[in-house]
Amino acid sequence: MLSSAVPIVEPSPMEGYSSAFLEKEAAAQAEFEGDEGGEHDPESNSLRNPLLKRTPTLTSSQYAVVGAKVSHIESLDYEINENDLFKHDWRSRSSGEVLQYIFLKWTLAFLVGLLTGVIASLINLAIENIAGIKILYLARYVTGFVYLTGVNLALTMVAASLCVVFAPTAAGPGIPEIKAYLNGVDTPNMFGASTLFVKIIGSIGSVSAGLDLGKEGPLVHIGSCIASLLSQGGSESDDYRLKRKWLRFFNNDRDRRDLITCGASSGVCAAFRSPVGGVLFSLEEVATWWRSALLWRTFFSTAVVVVVLRGFIEYCNSGRCGLFGRGGLILFDVSDVKVSYHVNDLLLVALVGVLGGLLGSAYNFVLHKVLILYGRINERGRMAKLVLSLSVSLFTSICLYGLPFLAPCTPCDGSAEVVCPTPEGSGNFKQFNCPSGHYNDLASLLYATNDDAVRNIFSSSTPSEFRLLSLLIFFALYCVLGLVTFGIAVPSGLFLPIILMGSAYGRLLALALQSYIHIDHGLYAVLGAAALMSGSMRMTVSLCVIFLELTNNLLLLPITMFVLLIAKTVGDSINPSIYEIILDLKGLPFLEASKDPWMRNLTVAELAAAKPAVVSLESVEKVARIVEVLKHTGHNGFPVVNWPEGSAELHGLVLRSHLVAVLRKKWFLKERRRSAEWEVRERFTSVDLAKKGVTLEQVAISEEELEMYVDLHPFTNTTPYTVVESMSVAKALVLFRQVGLRHLLIIPKYQGAGISPIVGILTRQDLRAHNILAAFPHLANKKHK
Amino acid sequence: MLSSAVPIVEPSPMEGYSSAFLEKEAAAQAEFEGDEGGEHDPESNSLRNPLLKRTPTLTSSQYAVVGAKVSHIESLDYEINENDLFKHDWRSRSSGEVLQYIFLKWTLAFLVGLLTGVIASLINLAIENIAGIKILYLARYVTGFVYLTGVNLALTMVAASLCVVFAPTAAGPGIPEIKAYLNGVDTPNMFGASTLFVKIIGSIGSVSAGLDLGKEGPLVHIGSCIASLLSQGGSESDDYRLKRKWLRFFNNDRDRRDLITCGASSGVCAAFRSPVGGVLFSLEEVATWWRSALLWRTFFSTAVVVVVLRGFIEYCNSGRCGLFGRGGLILFDVSDVKVSYHVNDLLLVALVGVLGGLLGSAYNFVLHKVLILYGRINERGRMAKLVLSLSVSLFTSICLYGLPFLAPCTPCDGSAEVVCPTPEGSGNFKQFNCPSGHYNDLASLLYATNDDAVRNIFSSSTPSEFRLLSLLIFFALYCVLGLVTFGIAVPSGLFLPIILMGSAYGRLLALALQSYIHIDHGLYAVLGAAALMSGSMRMTVSLCVIFLELTNNLLLLPITMFVLLIAKTVGDSINPSIYEIILDLKGLPFLEASKDPWMRNLTVAELAAAKPAVVSLESVEKVARIVEVLKHTGHNGFPVVNWPEGSAELHGLVLRSHLVAVLRKKWFLKERRRSAEWEVRERFTSVDLAKKGVTLEQVAISEEELEMYVDLHPFTNTTPYTVVESMSVAKALVLFRQVGLRHLLIIPKYQGAGISPIVGILTRQDLRAHNILAAFPHLANKKHK
Repeated sequence: MLSSAVPIVEPSPMEGYSSAFLEKEAAAQAEFEGDEGGEHDPESNSLRNPLLKRTPTLTSSQYAVVGAKVSHIESLDYEINENDLFKHDWRSRSSGEVLQYIFLKWTLAFLVGLLTGVIASLINLAIENIAGIKILYLARYVTGFVYLTGVNLALTMVAASLCVVFAPTAAGPGIPEIKAYLNGVDTPNMFGASTLFVKIIGSIGSVSAGLDLGKEGPLVHIGSCIASLLSQGGSESDDYRLKRKWLRFFNNDRDRRDLITCGASSGVCAAFRSPVGGVLFSLEEVATWWRSALLWRTFFSTAVVVVVLRGFIEYCNSGRCGLFGRGGLILFDVSDVKVSYHVNDLLLVALVGVLGGLLGSAYNFVLHKVLILYGRINERGRMAKLVLSLSVSLFTSICLYGLPFLAPCTPCDGSAEVVCPTPEGSGNFKQFNCPSGHYNDLASLLYATNDDAVRNIFSSSTPSEFRLLSLLIFFALYCVLGLVTFGIAVPSGLFLPIILMGSAYGRLLALALQSYIHIDHGLYAVLGAAALMSGSMRMTVSLCVIFLELTNNLLLLPITMFVLLIAKTVGDSINPSIYEIILDLKGLPFLEASKDPWMRNLTVAELAAAKPAVVSLESVEKVARIVEVLKHTGHNGFPVVNWPEGSAELHGLVLRSHLVAVLRKKWFLKERRRSAEWEVRERFTSVDLAKKGVTLEQVAISEEELEMYVDLHPFTNTTPYTVVESMSVAKALVLFRQVGLRHLLIIPKYQGAGISPIVGILTRQDLRAHNILAAFPHLANKKHK
Repeated sequence: MLSSAVPIVEPSPMEGYSSAFLEKEAAAQAEFEGDEGGEHDPESNSLRNPLLKRTPTLTSSQYAVVGAKVSHIESLDYEINENDLFKHDWRSRSSGEVLQYIFLKWTLAFLVGLLTGVIASLINLAIENIAGIKILYLARYVTGFVYLTGVNLALTMVAASLCVVFAPTAAGPGIPEIKAYLNGVDTPNMFGASTLFVKIIGSIGSVSAGLDLGKEGPLVHIGSCIASLLSQGGSESDDYRLKRKWLRFFNNDRDRRDLITCGASSGVCAAFRSPVGGVLFSLEEVATWWRSALLWRTFFSTAVVVVVLRGFIEYCNSGRCGLFGRGGLILFDVSDVKVSYHVNDLLLVALVGVLGGLLGSAYNFVLHKVLILYGRINERGRMAKLVLSLSVSLFTSICLYGLPFLAPCTPCDGSAEVVCPTPEGSGNFKQFNCPSGHYNDLASLLYATNDDAVRNIFSSSTPSEFRLLSLLIFFALYCVLGLVTFGIAVPSGLFLPIILMGSAYGRLLALALQSYIHIDHGLYAVLGAAALMSGSMRMTVSLCVIFLELTNNLLLLPITMFVLLIAKTVGDSINPSIYEIILDLKGLPFLEASKDPWMRNLTVAELAAAKPAVVSLESVEKVARIVEVLKHTGHNGFPVVNWPEGSAELHGLVLRSHLVAVLRKKWFLKERRRSAEWEVRERFTSVDLAKKGVTLEQVAISEEELEMYVDLHPFTNTTPYTVVESMSVAKALVLFRQVGLRHLLIIPKYQGAGISPIVGILTRQDLRAHNILAAFPHLANKKHK
C-alpha cells in the first residue's frame, strides 16, 4: 500500500508561495482545458470549468511584509465553529471542567501581568545601569567621543544582529502586527519564544545605545508574546499546547486573542506605569472586538503589573539595584505645578493643538517616505540592515556628543533650590564643559537617557533654564533622529521619540510666546508632547489617561483633552494615523471600522461576481475531489452543498485546515455513505481539528485512497454566517467586523430547484476598500467627485 | 368616499394595550375558525390557519414598568434599513449635505456638553444655597426640629408632587432605562421636555431636602434628555424634528443613540467632575455598542462639560454665587495624603474588598425586596406615592436631627491645624450642643449636605476624629436610609448613598483594626466606598477612574484596583448587579452580553418552532390583507416573500411603522402591479417613513380601498440579517447583540420549490434567557445540574 503512495505536490523551491501560484496555474489550466474541450471528471466541473464564466478581477494578495520578508499570512478563526466534533466537545464538558477553564483563564491573565511586570522591571534595571554607567565614565573630547561611539555601536550591534539573524519580526514596535492579530490577521512568527528573547535583549541594547527610540512599543510586544506563549504552554508550536491536558480548552483563536489583549495592555501599563491607560490603549487603539468581561480581565492583568512594578521600585529604592530606581511610581511627575489658566490661555493652548496636529501629520508623511526607502535598503539582505543600523547609531552618537559644544554656558540661578550644576551623572543642570557655577543647557538634554531628557524638559518653575537656540537644536535633532531611527532593524517604540520631539516643540513655543502665557513652561512641554502624539497616533481617551498617569496632574486634564482633540482633528483631515500607514506598508489586511460612503452603492453579489466562482463540496465527497480542490485553490473555506432530489441543501462550511486534518488521518470510507457518530469520535477529537499549520504537502495519499470517500458531516461548521445577495458591502462589513468573521456566505434572493443556495463567499481581503476599488474603478471616481 | 370610511379598530378603553391583547384574540379566533372550518380568504391562510400547527409556548410580554405604570414598549431600529427610499436618500445627498451632517453631529455633541454643564452647575448652585441656608438658620431643640422637618417635607413635597403629577418617569435614577435604550429598548416618555424639567427641579428639591440620595443618576438622565431633545429639534414629538430641514438627516435611531451616549457621559462627568470617568462609565456600564468614533465624540462632550464646570467654579470662587463654590474642580480631594503600604496592608485591603463585595450584594438583595414592596405601594395611586415619599422624608429628618444627641462631646485636639469647633455652617468639627473647645462628631456628619458628609468622612490625618459608636450609628442609619429612600417617587441617584454607606464602613473598619493598619483612615474610607460601589454596581475600570478623578490621588490607584476587583468578584458570585435587578424588576427586555451555556444546545429553529408561525406578506399586497395582518398581530416586522413560478423569493422585511405610514398616506394601486420609482418618490420621502408612533387606529380606510393593492417594494428592507436554522441560540445572540438587530430571519437548510425561504423570525424578546427557559423548562433543569 505504502509503496504506491505518491506525494501529491512535487517538492518545489516555491513551497511557501504554493497556493496563490497554484491558483493562477489552475485558472490558466482551466482556460486551456475549456478551449480544448478535453475530457475530465464531471464532478470537478465547477472547479475547472466554472458554469458561469466570470472575469476574476477582484484579486487579493495573501502576502505581507513580516519583519523585512514577504510571508504568506492567514486569517484567524474567531467565529464560533459549530461542527459536530466541537459541539460534542462543549456538551461533554463537566461543570468541573468548565470551572477549570474559567480558573485557567484568570490564572493566565495573572501570569501575563506578573511576567510582563517582572520582565519590564528587569529591562528597566538593565537599561538604567548600562546607560548610567556609560554616561558616568564619559571622558572629555576625543577619548570621550571614541568611547561613547564605540559603546553605542557595540550595543546597537548586539540588538541589530540578534534581530537580523534570529528574529526579523522582533524589529520595530510590533504594535501594528498585534493590532492586525486582534483584527483577525495571523502574522507568522510574531509571538514565538525567539522573538520574545530577541525583543528583550534587543530593547535593552538599542535603548542603552542612546538611539532615539523607546521601550514602550517593544514592551507591548513582549506582553503579547508572553500571553501567546502562555496560551500555548510555553512552546511556539501548537502541538505542545494541545498535548497538555490543562491547556486543551484553549484550543481556539478566541481565547488566545483575549489573552493577547491582556498582554498588550500589560505592556503599555509596564511602559508608562499606567494601569488604566494600558487598558484604554488596548481598547481604543489595539483591539477590534471588546466585551465587558474582557475589560475586567485586562484590568486585572494591569493591576498585577502595577503591583509588581511598585514592589520592584520599593525594593530598589534602598539602593540595591545599582543606578536604577531613584524615583517613584510616576514617571514624569509634574503634580506640584499649580495649574490656573484664563480664556486667553485657551487660545494659545489651541495653537499648541493645531501646530501639534500639523507637525504630527507631517511626521507621518515623511516617516512614510523614509520607511519606503528603508524597505528598499533592507531588502538587500542582512548586511545592508546591519550597516544601516550601525550608521544611524554612529550618526546619533556624533550628534549627541558634538552638539552640546555649540551651546554657550549659562550661569546658575542662585535663587533656585536645586543644586547647580548637578554633580551626578543624571540631573537637570549639567556642567559639561562649563566653568563652575555655570551649566550647559543642551548637555542637560543630550547627555542623559531619553527618560531623563524628558524629565528635564518637563521640569517646572524653570522658565529660563533652556535657551531658545538650544531648544531649537534639540528639536531639530530629534525630528531628524525620530525619522531615521524608527525603520532600522532593532526593537523600537514610537512613543518616546514623539514625546521627546513634542516636549521640545511645546517648550519652544512657550519660550517664543513667553510674554503671552501664564502657564508653566514645563506644562507647555507636556501639552506639546500630547499634541504631537495625538497628531501622529490619533488617539484621544487613552493618551489622555496615559498622560494623566505619567504626570499625575489632574488639573491639567481639561486642557490636555482639548489639545488632544484639536490635534487629532487637524491630523485626521490631512493623513491617516501612523499605525494605519505602517499596516498599509506591510500589506497586512486590516479591516478598518470606517466604511466608505461608496460601499453603500455596491452589493455583495456584485462584489462576489468579480471573484472566481465558488468552489463547493458535497457532504460525502470523493477523496480525489478534495485533494484536487485543496491543490488547485488557495481558499481556506469551502461551502458544503448537497443536492437531494428537487432541492438544495446548504450544509455549511468546511475549513481547509480541517480537510487537511482528515486527509492526514486518512479517515476514509470505502463507499459513499454517512458515518455514524461513534466512528468519528473513535478517530477524532476536537483537539485534532484545532491543530494548525499542517499543509497538504505533508500528506501522501495512494491512488487507491483517492477513489475512496470522506464524510464531511462531522467537520462542517453547519452554521456559517450568511447575508442576502442584495446587501450592500457597507452593511456586510459591519457584520463581518463586529462578529469577527473569516468567511461570509452570500445566499441568493431567489431559491428553487436547481438554484445553488450559495451565490458567493466573501473573505477579509474581498472587503478591503483598496481591493474593491481596484476591481471597481468607477467607484473610486465617484469617491473623488 | 370619506363618508364610507370606517375606523378599523373600535375605540376601546384598552387602546394602549391593543396589540398583545389582539394577538391573543387573533390566536383564539384562529383556533375557533379552524375548528369550524369556516370559509376565509385563501390569501390570509398563513395568518389565521397556520399551515404547520404549532403550540405557541414562547410567549413574551411587550410591557414594562415605566415610572410606576405598565406601558407598552418597543424595540428600536438600529439596523441599517436598506429599502429603496432610504437608499435613494443616501445616494441623493450632495457632499455639502454630508459635511452638514458631520458638522451637525459635532455641534450637537458640543451643545449636549454645554447644556449639561450649565444645568449641572445651576443645580449645584441651587442645592448648595438651599441646603446651606437651611443648615445656617438651624435653631436648637424643638424649634429647630420643627423647622428642619418642615423645610425638608416642603422640599420633598415639591419634588414628589412634580414627579407624581407631571412625569412619573422622572422618579429614580433613569440609568437603567438609558441602558435599555442604548441596548435597543424604547421606553416611552423617558426623554421628553417635561421629564427633563421635573428631573431638574425634582433633583434640587430632593437633594436639598437632605434625603439620602444623590444627583448623579438624575444628572445622567438630564444629560440624556438634553441629547434626545436636541436630536429632535427641542420637541418631544418626532414631527417637529422632521420638519426642520437641518435636522432631517437625524432621522434614524442610530444617530439618536450616539447622541444619548454623549449625554449620559456628560451627565456622569458633570456629577463627579470626571471627564474620563464619564466616558468610561458610558462605555462599561451604559452602552451596548461602541465604536472608536463614538469614543472620541463622547470625549469631546465631556471635555466641554468640564470646561463649563471649571468656568463656573472660577466665577463663583469670588463669592458671587452665595454659598456655592468654595472648592476646586476636585470633589473629594485627598491628594495631600502620602500613600505607602506594605505587604501586610494588602491583606487588610483585600478584607475591605471581600466585605465590600458581601455588603454590596446584601444591599442589592434587600433593595430588591424593598423595591418589590414599594412597587405594590406605588401601584395604589398618586396619593400613596406622595405619602410614602413624605414619610421617608419625615423619618430622615427625625434621624438626622435626633441622632447627634446620642453622641458625647469630644474635646478638640489643640495640636491640629484646623479650627475646632468649626464656626461656619459647613465644616469638619461641628460644635452642635457641645461646650466651646469641644465638638460633636456625629453632628459633623449628619448636620451637613451629603457632599460635605463625604468630605468629612474622607478627611485625612484625623484618625481619632470620629468615635467608633458614632461611625456605627452613621453606618447603620445610612444603610436603612439607603434602602428606604431609593424607591420613592423623586429623582434619586444610587451613587451617593452607596458612597456614604461605603465610606462609613471603610472608616469603621480602619478604626476597628487601627493597630494593624498603616494607611490613613481617610483613605480607608475611600477604599470602603469603592468596595461597596463595586460590590453593588459591579463596575471596575470606570469606577476606578471616577475615584481617581474624585480624589486626585494617583498613588492610591493600585490598591483601589484590587479592592474593586475583589469586591466585584465576590459580588458577582452572589447575585446580579443592582442595575440588572432594576432592569429585571421593570421588565425591560434588556439583552445581556453573557450567553448561558445551555444556549449552545438549542437551535434557532427549535426556538422559532415554539412561536406562532411566521406571518409574511407579498411584495405587492392587497390592502385588506395588510390591514388584517396589522390588526391581528402585534409583530413589528413582516417578511416579504414572493412565489414566482417554481421558486421562492426572499424579498426582505417590512416594518409595521412603514406599513402604517403607507396606509395613512393611502398610497394604493388599483391593480396588482409594481410601481415605478417616480410614483413613490412623488408621494414619499425618507422622512415620511422615519415618523414614529402613528398607530393603525388613527387610520381610516374605506371598503373600496380595502380591495386595492400596495406595492411594498420601495418600503421593504431588502437586506435583513439572516441565520441558518441550525445555528445555536448562543451564536445567534452574538450576532443579534453585536449588530444591534430588531428582527433576525431564519432561513432553512433545505431549499427548493414550494419551500418557504423563511423558517421563522426572532426578536429581542425571543432571545432573552428568561423567556426561553419558560418555553423550554428542560434546559433550566440542565442548567442546575
